[in-house]
Amino acid sequence: MTSRADGRANDQLRDITITRNWLDHPAGSVLVEFGKTRVLCVASASEGVPRWRKGSGLGWVTAEYAMLPGSTHTRSDRESTKGRVGGRTHEISRLIGRSLRAVIDYQALGENTINIDCDVLQADGGTRTAAITGAYVALADAVRTLGVEKALTGSVAAVSVGIIDGVPRLDLPYEEDVRAETDMNIVMTGDGKFVEVQGTAEGAAFDRAELDALLALGEKGCADLTALQKAALGA
Amino acid sequence: MTSRADGRANDQLRDITITRNWLDHPAGSVLVEFGKTRVLCVASASEGVPRWRKGSGLGWVTAEYAMLPGSTHTRSDRESTKGRVGGRTHEISRLIGRSLRAVIDYQALGENTINIDCDVLQADGGTRTAAITGAYVALADAVRTLGVEKALTGSVAAVSVGIIDGVPRLDLPYEEDVRAETDMNIVMTGDGKFVEVQGTAEGAAFDRAELDALLALGEKGCADLTALQKAALGA
Amino acid sequence: MTSRADGRANDQLRDITITRNWLDHPAGSVLVEFGKTRVLCVASASEGVPRWRKGSGLGWVTAEYAMLPGSTHTRSDRESTKGRVGGRTHEISRLIGRSLRAVIDYQALGENTINIDCDVLQADGGTRTAAITGAYVALADAVRTLGVEKALTGSVAAVSVGIIDGVPRLDLPYEEDVRAETDMNIVMTGDGKFVEVQGTAEGAAFDRAELDALLALGEKGCADLTALQKAALGA
Amino acid sequence: MTSRADGRANDQLRDITITRNWLDHPAGSVLVEFGKTRVLCVASASEGVPRWRKGSGLGWVTAEYAMLPGSTHTRSDRESTKGRVGGRTHEISRLIGRSLRAVIDYQALGENTINIDCDVLQADGGTRTAAITGAYVALADAVRTLGVEKALTGSVAAVSVGIIDGVPRLDLPYEEDVRAETDMNIVMTGDGKFVEVQGTAEGAAFDRAELDALLALGEKGCADLTALQKAALGA
Amino acid sequence: MTSRADGRANDQLRDITITRNWLDHPAGSVLVEFGKTRVLCVASASEGVPRWRKGSGLGWVTAEYAMLPGSTHTRSDRESTKGRVGGRTHEISRLIGRSLRAVIDYQALGENTINIDCDVLQADGGTRTAAITGAYVALADAVRTLGVEKALTGSVAAVSVGIIDGVPRLDLPYEEDVRAETDMNIVMTGDGKFVEVQGTAEGAAFDRAELDALLALGEKGCADLTALQKAALGA
Amino acid sequence: MTSRADGRANDQLRDITITRNWLDHPAGSVLVEFGKTRVLCVASASEGVPRWRKGSGLGWVTAEYAMLPGSTHTRSDRESTKGRVGGRTHEISRLIGRSLRAVIDYQALGENTINIDCDVLQADGGTRTAAITGAYVALADAVRTLGVEKALTGSVAAVSVGIIDGVPRLDLPYEEDVRAETDMNIVMTGDGKFVEVQGTAEGAAFDRAELDALLALGEKGCADLTALQKAALGA
Repeated sequence: MTSRADGRANDQLRDITITRNWLDHPAGSVLVEFGKTRVLCVASASEGVPRWRKGSGLGWVTAEYAMLPGSTHTRSDRESTKGRVGGRTHEISRLIGRSLRAVIDYQALGENTINIDCDVLQADGGTRTAAITGAYVALADAVRTLGVEKALTGSVAAVSVGIIDGVPRLDLPYEEDVRAETDMNIVMTGDGKFVEVQGTAEGAAFDRAELDALLALGEKGCADLTALQKAALGA
Repeated sequence: MTSRADGRANDQLRDITITRNWLDHPAGSVLVEFGKTRVLCVASASEGVPRWRKGSGLGWVTAEYAMLPGSTHTRSDRESTKGRVGGRTHEISRLIGRSLRAVIDYQALGENTINIDCDVLQADGGTRTAAITGAYVALADAVRTLGVEKALTGSVAAVSVGIIDGVPRLDLPYEEDVRAETDMNIVMTGDGKFVEVQGTAEGAAFDRAELDALLALGEKGCADLTALQKAALGA
Repeated sequence: MTSRADGRANDQLRDITITRNWLDHPAGSVLVEFGKTRVLCVASASEGVPRWRKGSGLGWVTAEYAMLPGSTHTRSDRESTKGRVGGRTHEISRLIGRSLRAVIDYQALGENTINIDCDVLQADGGTRTAAITGAYVALADAVRTLGVEKALTGSVAAVSVGIIDGVPRLDLPYEEDVRAETDMNIVMTGDGKFVEVQGTAEGAAFDRAELDALLALGEKGCADLTALQKAALGA
Repeated sequence: MTSRADGRANDQLRDITITRNWLDHPAGSVLVEFGKTRVLCVASASEGVPRWRKGSGLGWVTAEYAMLPGSTHTRSDRESTKGRVGGRTHEISRLIGRSLRAVIDYQALGENTINIDCDVLQADGGTRTAAITGAYVALADAVRTLGVEKALTGSVAAVSVGIIDGVPRLDLPYEEDVRAETDMNIVMTGDGKFVEVQGTAEGAAFDRAELDALLALGEKGCADLTALQKAALGA
Repeated sequence: MTSRADGRANDQLRDITITRNWLDHPAGSVLVEFGKTRVLCVASASEGVPRWRKGSGLGWVTAEYAMLPGSTHTRSDRESTKGRVGGRTHEISRLIGRSLRAVIDYQALGENTINIDCDVLQADGGTRTAAITGAYVALADAVRTLGVEKALTGSVAAVSVGIIDGVPRLDLPYEEDVRAETDMNIVMTGDGKFVEVQGTAEGAAFDRAELDALLALGEKGCADLTALQKAALGA
Repeated sequence: MTSRADGRANDQLRDITITRNWLDHPAGSVLVEFGKTRVLCVASASEGVPRWRKGSGLGWVTAEYAMLPGSTHTRSDRESTKGRVGGRTHEISRLIGRSLRAVIDYQALGENTINIDCDVLQADGGTRTAAITGAYVALADAVRTLGVEKALTGSVAAVSVGIIDGVPRLDLPYEEDVRAETDMNIVMTGDGKFVEVQGTAEGAAFDRAELDALLALGEKGCADLTALQKAALGA
């Protein structure tokens, strides 16, 4: 039998910590930890919306994801120094933005913009799902600060699942992630619906039964994370 | 009852055309058409591999996707002129590359690189899935040209599915795509396994039953496309 | 005696094909072929003009040229990926723009902009002259679509000429182009006047007699192309 | 009499916290806090040196400084997204690098490179001086990790000083910094010598007596910081 | 009768000054003046050639052209600050490089590279032709400095000609250049052959008789410049 | 005793030449020479101010510094070609701008912008201090041209000082600069106050006595330069 290096059950999350108000200035700021993965999620509010949305009466939410150079096992080059944002970074920024917009009522937000910045301080697998999970809490704090709680129509959380040595597992750390045959990120609302499902065969293609097993694990993980978000927000 | 503007059944593909050897120089070149969507897929072979892979004895396959300025309903700016490749372009290029690499045996390819270029000549929804479907055929031609047919371990095809007005539909043209509540791209091997599953709630989040319906449609569409690829390749 | 590999007379064009309405969306779209050279020329119309021209009552025409990666014998890197447009590309884009503006009445165009995109699908010498010749036809279709036929004051066509092994020749394919001692591109109006003359000594400098011979060939070639443009436009 | 908003004496530092090993992967990682200013300083070691230094037997130390978007009172745009590193960022990165290289013996370091990354998590004035002070501690940990303690020939610390309402003050928070007539950053070694002196008249030019008063304050502040660095390193 | 503002005959050059050794470091440095147009032409020699030419035994000559911000009537933005080199700059750099390479024997040059930098200090029309004319003299000095005089197989000079108010004129200053109906740049060798002919109809297209008149003027101007180059070089 | 290669006393400037109106178009243009160091300083005036300053009634002064490729002993690459402005260039541009703004009354300038361009034609040490010294004279000419002499509240000059072989010296040429243990740039107003003090230990850190000696030398050098500026301006 293959068991996990950190002793977890296959359907068990890593230790999750959600620390609110980690910074002094922004409308919402959360340090979220999924095991050793540590992401700083900041929600900054500003008046006005991008040009293409002006005069619509609707707000906007956008996100940017980045990794600090020292967050990875081997130092990564800075994208500012390279002069261009890489494809992976773009992809994750877009995913975070879409995920949060799924629970936003633009009308209730009014012509305000909320920028979500998710900066990975330490990476150990699952940075994008930790980012979404933490960013939701920062966003919830930001809409309270702005006095527009109604702009939030629900909650959103995310988790990674994968098949390692033929076994479906929840919330992969780096050492499992690199060995996964299939890797899936699942984003769900607090009431158990899907916002994003992104599965990739890293090694062999996967069949429908494997896909179903991964979806079930993801549903379980997102439900657990939703409970932790509620607790953190004191709701 | 809501029926489709082009008269198709909900589980029916658009007219698919696959034209091989559309150009004279490259190892493989295919013009693929999904209805009005027209993508030129070119596979160029070159000796050698990227630096990080040298001396491994293994080959490499990579892909780039782009849209011609005049391919869209309203002209789009050129990314070369803007000086940076956008997030959507990066994301799709990466998806195409991963999808094709799922059916490549790097050992059999030897230290050669195949560049796949998918340039959208006309866009009417589903450009990324048309690109994957056509690129597989160009790749098959390229490995024949190189005399390394064994480098191809299977076939791969892709299709979009979505929920429009509550009804799951296969292979969305632009006018359905913009109205879809949920949009999913499915990439499968010729033997019916999943390579990529990417579902996004554009409007409301979707439940497990809707997800299952979309997956079933995708399986049907990919199987149909696999048959068309086989016919095009004279297999 | 040195004869041409493709059996043409020295003052004979390659097979020229001009296919109008090659795409569905743009105001004008033409696939032009000079032998194996294939260029997609698209004219997109939009309301308004660049900032420096606003309020003048005058229109604007601008052009961009690019080569698809797979168009060349050996794959070329994408300029969008390199993050900068090369000198040759800039130079040809500017040449196409100037050539077309020579037959435009800005007053009659009104404050509208026509973007000309010339994308080389397959390159076999003479891509810039094919682009100009095809772009004129796309432009003619665009002004008709806009209902401002009067904005076009004449026609324009272009051809390459060169000296190979001491013999002046018309419309050089790639294999002649690389061997040419002198290479000249000539752009002329339909009534036989010069818009651009660009001659370059690739090998030895050329004398006045050689220059005169090349100009005569160019006049002949542009006249032939003008006739083909007229036929294509059904005029 | 003008007293400081936070009740400090004019020659008193803010509360300084130096937390070592704040991350798990890098050779050295320090979270340094000067009041509300919080900078993550990471020293990553790698074998080899830049090309221009290869074969010299000498090592290299280089530094990069950046601010997280949410670190400032109003969110700042990301330099990676803007595609270029700003002048202020360049300037500070260079200052940090020079300051640390002042206490490095390249021979003892051997052909290894240490990258110092100073990322500002929260900015409240004095980010560059906090960065240098913390980076020295991260560097000290890194040379220990590498087993080349001898590569460090001394210690280095930095502090800002300025004249506010005519009064020289030590270690300016943001609210004092913006009001300063003169602003000076002083970098000194642990044995009381100067590495960098950078004074700027923000408002009126300053005379020699004012300059002398600022230098004296800086000497005092750097001596205090040196003691805190020693304590943190358990020396 | 329309006469020239500066009193010159239609076939007369402006006052031409060629000052050699204007700088201390480079192998060749020339300040060339065509009336108020002032261009600094520097030829720097270095060992080695670009990668694609290594091991061939052949040298290389390349050129870069730029305008200082203050050289134009209204200040121009710096291309380094804009982060990209414009099309006009690229085009002129390429023209200068080709023109000089026309008189280079790569074999005699050996595997050395000569970089030609032409920086416009003051612009008053004809900057590219002044640059070519001056750069040849800087190049002649550089090959002497290198002791490879045989690498130069001839001389090269350039001049602008144009039709203003129907009259062909030689060597246009800015005020004539902006009014020219047709503008032509002619590059010729010292023995009277053509290297480049670039004619553009700025206003009306031009006929063959006008073209012939311009070519004759250009031949006269280049011959005069050749004599001035010889005098400057003391030959 | 160590004496200077060029025979100067340790507190003596190189030969300084200030040539006004070196160009025809700009509001102010000065060629300044510090020995072999030659910098062209151009002040261009334009109506209006940057967006963040509009409607304030206040003017703006900004500066850009650059080196021509051929100005250095070995040719330097062009920053426009590299596509990014380097850290050193940014740093010096910012220093020049700050130095000149120290003597500007924005109210008196009105909503006008003066761009200062300092282009190094030949570099032999001290290019930034020569640039500041010359730019002040160009600025003085520009405010006269604009008829807003009152916008200038004083004068500003700059000089480099350094310790070579233990001896403090004024105005270092390149060969002294590269050998300096400590290098300091001092910017002062005409009435003897400091605007900028930037000292860097290139080799060993320096003590307070050395710092004082350098400051004294800098005060002497700036006073001498102030006299030369006055003479040049005929004041």
